[in-house]
Amino acid sequence: MQIPIDRSKPIPLPRQIQAHLERLIHERLLAPGVKLPATRELARELGVNRATVSFAYEELVASGLARAHVGQGTFVAGPTAGEAELADGAGPDAPPEAIDWSGLLSRSARVSLGERERRRLGALPGRLPPGLISFAGGMPDSAMFPTDAFRRVLNAVIREEGEELLQYYPAAGYPPLRRFLSGYLLRFGVEARPDDILIVNGSQQGFDLIARTLLDPGDVVAIEEPTYPRAMQVFRAFGARLAPVALGEDGPRPDGLERAIERHAPKFFYCQPSAHNPTGLTISGDGRRRLLEVCARRRVAIVEDGFDGSLYYDARPPAPLRALDRRGLVIYIGTFSKILFPGLRLGWLVAPRPLLERLEAAKQLADLQTSALIQAAVYHFCERRLLERHLARIADEYRRRHRRLLESLTRRMPRDVSWTEARGGFSLLLTLPEGLDATALLARAVARGVAFTPGPAFFVEEGGERALRLAFSGVPAARIDEGVRRLADVIRDSRRRPQPRAESERAAVPVV
Amino acid sequence: MQIPIDRSKPIPLPRQIQAHLERLIHERLLAPGVKLPATRELARELGVNRATVSFAYEELVASGLARAHVGQGTFVAGPTAGEAELADGAGPDAPPEAIDWSGLLSRSARVSLGERERRRLGALPGRLPPGLISFAGGMPDSAMFPTDAFRRVLNAVIREEGEELLQYYPAAGYPPLRRFLSGYLLRFGVEARPDDILIVNGSQQGFDLIARTLLDPGDVVAIEEPTYPRAMQVFRAFGARLAPVALGEDGPRPDGLERAIERHAPKFFYCQPSAHNPTGLTISGDGRRRLLEVCARRRVAIVEDGFDGSLYYDARPPAPLRALDRRGLVIYIGTFSKILFPGLRLGWLVAPRPLLERLEAAKQLADLQTSALIQAAVYHFCERRLLERHLARIADEYRRRHRRLLESLTRRMPRDVSWTEARGGFSLLLTLPEGLDATALLARAVARGVAFTPGPAFFVEEGGERALRLAFSGVPAARIDEGVRRLADVIRDSRRRPQPRAESERAAVPVV
Repeated sequence: MQIPIDRSKPIPLPRQIQAHLERLIHERLLAPGVKLPATRELARELGVNRATVSFAYEELVASGLARAHVGQGTFVAGPTAGEAELADGAGPDAPPEAIDWSGLLSRSARVSLGERERRRLGALPGRLPPGLISFAGGMPDSAMFPTDAFRRVLNAVIREEGEELLQYYPAAGYPPLRRFLSGYLLRFGVEARPDDILIVNGSQQGFDLIARTLLDPGDVVAIEEPTYPRAMQVFRAFGARLAPVALGEDGPRPDGLERAIERHAPKFFYCQPSAHNPTGLTISGDGRRRLLEVCARRRVAIVEDGFDGSLYYDARPPAPLRALDRRGLVIYIGTFSKILFPGLRLGWLVAPRPLLERLEAAKQLADLQTSALIQAAVYHFCERRLLERHLARIADEYRRRHRRLLESLTRRMPRDVSWTEARGGFSLLLTLPEGLDATALLARAVARGVAFTPGPAFFVEEGGERALRLAFSGVPAARIDEGVRRLADVIRDSRRRPQPRAESERAAVPVV
Repeated sequence: MQIPIDRSKPIPLPRQIQAHLERLIHERLLAPGVKLPATRELARELGVNRATVSFAYEELVASGLARAHVGQGTFVAGPTAGEAELADGAGPDAPPEAIDWSGLLSRSARVSLGERERRRLGALPGRLPPGLISFAGGMPDSAMFPTDAFRRVLNAVIREEGEELLQYYPAAGYPPLRRFLSGYLLRFGVEARPDDILIVNGSQQGFDLIARTLLDPGDVVAIEEPTYPRAMQVFRAFGARLAPVALGEDGPRPDGLERAIERHAPKFFYCQPSAHNPTGLTISGDGRRRLLEVCARRRVAIVEDGFDGSLYYDARPPAPLRALDRRGLVIYIGTFSKILFPGLRLGWLVAPRPLLERLEAAKQLADLQTSALIQAAVYHFCERRLLERHLARIADEYRRRHRRLLESLTRRMPRDVSWTEARGGFSLLLTLPEGLDATALLARAVARGVAFTPGPAFFVEEGGERALRLAFSGVPAARIDEGVRRLADVIRDSRRRPQPRAESERAAVPVV
């Protein structure tokens, strides 16, 4: 530990050491329980007598800031919570900050600061009160993770390839994983050679790389509405304006898309044709061809967020846009977050070759590469058909939860509440009766023990006030009916008693 | 597998299936060795008779594009390399691309495309001819990785915390790792509470988040010269201009820094005070205080790339700028890439609290979070004091390699070759005699069996033509003298025979 001691000062050395450590403890830079360096070690490091350090430690113990355990050493004991809190707000001696950091922020950092944006997104993941039935998190259920199987595969991978995988690795990705994905995508009709695939840290980094490769401030992105909030947020952070295209009977309305293109000349159109978040809807084959036709004629690129064809609850979804496209219009984003583990941060991009090179260069700038160890582990996991087995299991379970949710909604909701029926994915979108506001409803719902995500999060500007997303993937089947009962009660109650629309009632709920 | 079949066409169904598969094989979308779906399975999927699929497969076997193994199935056998190459360039039927992707690129994507930039950076990692002694890679030696110890820790971590770690996780990082880093940094005098630390994917993502949070196109970054190429590249990708500050006797010259600030009003000053890449130099305590004084007076922020105080070869380096700074000027970047495994992609940022919140928001936009599994594994690895043990081992070995390199240079180099002496890090910088050009020399050197990184990679505009970086960390001690002998021979030879300065002689060598 480096402690500045000054022999020219009239303050004795033990006091200087003591005062320094006291400050560190008060400012919580040395946390309670932390072991102080051995006296001999610190004395050598500071070039002082060992007794000097011992004396300083004894004073700390005497003042209650440390405790000595014979034979073990001296440990930090304080400060009390109150003292620490005081110190937290930078003490009276804190020197003036020389830099006005907020004045230094880039335009995009200022954009992503907006209060509105923050309300939309909330924290991830939220810590919610116990007993709460939460339909708010659009994430897979960790109780069903194939954790142990993955552990065994990872263990074998480090044994066999550890050294190479823990060194720097090419940005494009682990070749066997890219080959696997080429075959995996072909099952859905997507024709991508391994070289057409770039490994990224989940679809979030996919959005980010696409945005930085294609967007300049002032550019427009056409986007179906409602849509995935984090995609909107990334495009906005790069200075793009969003032109919403409303969902119709069968996906985003082609006439709306045509109009958005005509008015705004967008750089690309972002959509989720299958297992759409938040609605759970899937566009038909004809609907897909109509969208492709509009974009091909207008020469507008498409960013397809491909929640792939593995997780579906009735009919298998039609082939992705990328599979139907013969004109090289489509950039496809895939991820293992929904079908395996979100925490791995592993996804991929498929793009026309010249663009893929730029995306790879952007990936290298962003963080050099995605962990090759994780890539190799997932590859071997898939190669041993463990992904297939896992997918079959979770598709069954999520199908059951979805069915249960539909049954409960039908049974318990007032007549004038409506909802989408999910074809895949993790959620559906419910519409409240006229006069109710989902955001205002949330605080009451949480108090009653049920949570959801209010609709405005999924809309570009206004809209979604009466909508709310119910994610069923994380709620055990046995709890779903009780959650719906609570929600129906809150809706009935709120109808009787008019709702306050106060901003303060907006609760921060994670949106994934 | 989805195969489009059209019953209205006059072409028999088996032929349609066969033609589709032939195309996939020719275009290498089905690679040799891949197993085709079982006939029963594919027939069901396509809604055709099983005999229809069998007939298609038999035709593929007859034409040599597939092989049938009794009891195992049918496997792709072709195409020949020549056929595949032909297909690679998009066949005669390839539809016209509807999108001019290069016209869609963002300004930053166009910047990072520059030929000049590409020359500077080369590919990562390079594949180099066998027998070559490469001083080119600034990376730790994977032969010394504590791979097996890490495997055991990772295994235990998944057993105990796997489910939680594989779910979505808060962007700021794994709390125990942030606490550990707080204590680790305190050893070097850096006072950072766990809340002041943000976990990122290696220092590369640190640069990226800082750049996107602070830089707008046209902003200036003051940067010591020579410097780390990938830092320059990131700042440039965000549109920044770089104002070089030359290294003097003791780090970047304060008068040069003062002048750069006066002329260009930079957003921040980027430097590596310890174990500088490429020179290996370390700024003295006084030198550090002088730089801080200039920046505090001028109110310019500092981005300190802190190759931390653990890896040093003689005297322990002075405390980081961040430790000396009392004005809140410094953003500190740290990484596990040099002291543990580059492939983990794990590093951290320390920044003043209000800025750290913006950096965390940027991190969330970029990729939500860094793998919590990897964070937890590294935390437990450190907590068990395995990092300390590893550090002691590698510091010894790199110290030995560095000494060996200095001895060999002294013994073998012509009198008018000079070099820096590293105080830490992985490399030193050598200066060739007048009239020689490092870039032109490289091709000859590689032909002679030795590689290095030419100096221009480390310079902002012009400069470094006579400089070259020798990274000693990756070369076993026993090979160092032979490498220096080869290099000295090439230098002597090149002196006798004038060098061509042709661009074509520039070899792509990885720069880390």
